[in-house]
Amino acid sequence: MKNLLDIYSRKKKDIAAIEKALEESVYSDHAMLRETSSHLLKAGGKRIRPVFVLLSGEFGNYQLETMKRVAVPLELIHMASLVHDDVIDDANTRRGQLTVRSKWDNRIAMYTGDYIFAKALGVITQIHKPAVHQILSKAIVEMSIGEMEQIRFFFHSEQTIRDYLLRIRRKTALLIAISCQLGAMAAGAPDWISNKLYGFGYNVGMTFQIRDDILDLIGTEKQIGKPPGSDVKQGNITIPVLFAMQDPILKPLIMAELDRIHKLDGQTDVSRFLDIIRNSEGIAMADSLSQKYIDKAIASLDPLPNGQAKRDLIEVAHFIGNRSY
Amino acid sequence: MKNLLDIYSRKKKDIAAIEKALEESVYSDHAMLRETSSHLLKAGGKRIRPVFVLLSGEFGNYQLETMKRVAVPLELIHMASLVHDDVIDDANTRRGQLTVRSKWDNRIAMYTGDYIFAKALGVITQIHKPAVHQILSKAIVEMSIGEMEQIRFFFHSEQTIRDYLLRIRRKTALLIAISCQLGAMAAGAPDWISNKLYGFGYNVGMTFQIRDDILDLIGTEKQIGKPPGSDVKQGNITIPVLFAMQDPILKPLIMAELDRIHKLDGQTDVSRFLDIIRNSEGIAMADSLSQKYIDKAIASLDPLPNGQAKRDLIEVAHFIGNRSY
Repeated sequence: MKNLLDIYSRKKKDIAAIEKALEESVYSDHAMLRETSSHLLKAGGKRIRPVFVLLSGEFGNYQLETMKRVAVPLELIHMASLVHDDVIDDANTRRGQLTVRSKWDNRIAMYTGDYIFAKALGVITQIHKPAVHQILSKAIVEMSIGEMEQIRFFFHSEQTIRDYLLRIRRKTALLIAISCQLGAMAAGAPDWISNKLYGFGYNVGMTFQIRDDILDLIGTEKQIGKPPGSDVKQGNITIPVLFAMQDPILKPLIMAELDRIHKLDGQTDVSRFLDIIRNSEGIAMADSLSQKYIDKAIASLDPLPNGQAKRDLIEVAHFIGNRSY
Repeated sequence: MKNLLDIYSRKKKDIAAIEKALEESVYSDHAMLRETSSHLLKAGGKRIRPVFVLLSGEFGNYQLETMKRVAVPLELIHMASLVHDDVIDDANTRRGQLTVRSKWDNRIAMYTGDYIFAKALGVITQIHKPAVHQILSKAIVEMSIGEMEQIRFFFHSEQTIRDYLLRIRRKTALLIAISCQLGAMAAGAPDWISNKLYGFGYNVGMTFQIRDDILDLIGTEKQIGKPPGSDVKQGNITIPVLFAMQDPILKPLIMAELDRIHKLDGQTDVSRFLDIIRNSEGIAMADSLSQKYIDKAIASLDPLPNGQAKRDLIEVAHFIGNRSY
């Protein structure tokens, strides 16, 4: 399998241009905002959303300037939502770096998120297509509902697989879906193509989050940039756990652990919980569901014209389905 | 002086339509968001921004549907920023009602703000004028910088009058300025008119905030819907205080009080502080500055065509300069 870096290397120059545009876009004369924003940018990330914008743009009239105006705001919106999530989750590290709320405080994190979000909107106004703004604003509404849902379901052990899927749809899949869709739309690709790319991105996004949730349970701190078990500590019950609870023998054990962790507000060792899940069928079942989403994602691309962009999208999808970081 | 209600009564039907549109716009299938949003809406407010949108729209081709698409998002953005501010300020009441963070919690308040903000964007996408979106997004960036500035200046007794003015410009005046400007633009009024209205709104906005800051010092809890002295408790040093500190005899007394309140993290009786300020020249000086802004606001309207809209804007400006609630 081709490495993600190979694809990144084909688009290296354009990705570098986006990185630079990201820096410029959050630049502020305000010292604190400059510090918090550049701290966030330096913490990095896979820049999956910009890569999807770029590859999807290749199905239309690809102009780097136009692509930037879509890729930058989408990555900024993603970053802004992470800063706010870290406040909710009391997260101290992300990608091996201190979070804004931990390095500064929750108030500064909240306003940094607001600022980056506002900057994102400023960039996207350069795209003069009402449909682009409508799609984006709808996705943002759904994302914010998803964030609220996440709180509601903290330590909610009777939630269904469907609750989980709906939540990650809003939390992750939609933004990746519209990264593909808007990349194509901004490049003037026909609607049927941007719609197919939306389907691709949506399914890749579902995989992305499921994979993230698996890694939180089985990864090492070095791999995932935060202590494993962070999800359950904050009450986030993910799909491997829900699958594991389908085993009637494991269910009471898991419920007891969830209850214990909840009562201690997550301030406890969760290695027993992790052991139970790791030794259950939950991981394999989540993996297999994740694989189904990848298959669906790739099938969405079938009708699209063949070429390097399509091949790269398929490679990225496979990478995301198998990633261990 | 004509009462604000008289102006409201001329536009009663349209204001009611906006109130309804506000309710519809934040409606959510999500129970929690429905509750928090409608709690916010029911807490009311003067709806100054929508009124300015409506009155400014009368300088162009006034269509209620178009006006709604500007008035609703501007009021929602204002509401969203208040919810986030209440988190920062640990505020328990606003307009005599429990704040979202107090009735629920800080996390829910943060996401409610994000949600309402996202909904605001959804509504404004119905206006297909890129300039409108650019002006709005720039104002939102400035607002978020202003919010961060506010934190930086908490209990910062050596700040200048200029620091204060720049802060309230971002925090309050800009959004009121663009309410006037965008109301006129959306109605297709010529640029020179919307620019003059921007100047009017900006100056009225400065007055509005100075008046707010005076009321926090001299108003009763019944009048202002929160305990007087809330500003200083949270470290917000406002212009009457800065003016009072220009008196070399009062300065050390005020500094000592600020220091005491700061050390106790605002959890203390501030009546001595309030007494000092109330008996100083600070209130009268702030009042006189506020009056200057009103004069400038009204002068901005000079070149505009005479008529009911212009007369009403002048009345609202006077009301804002003298309001005691």
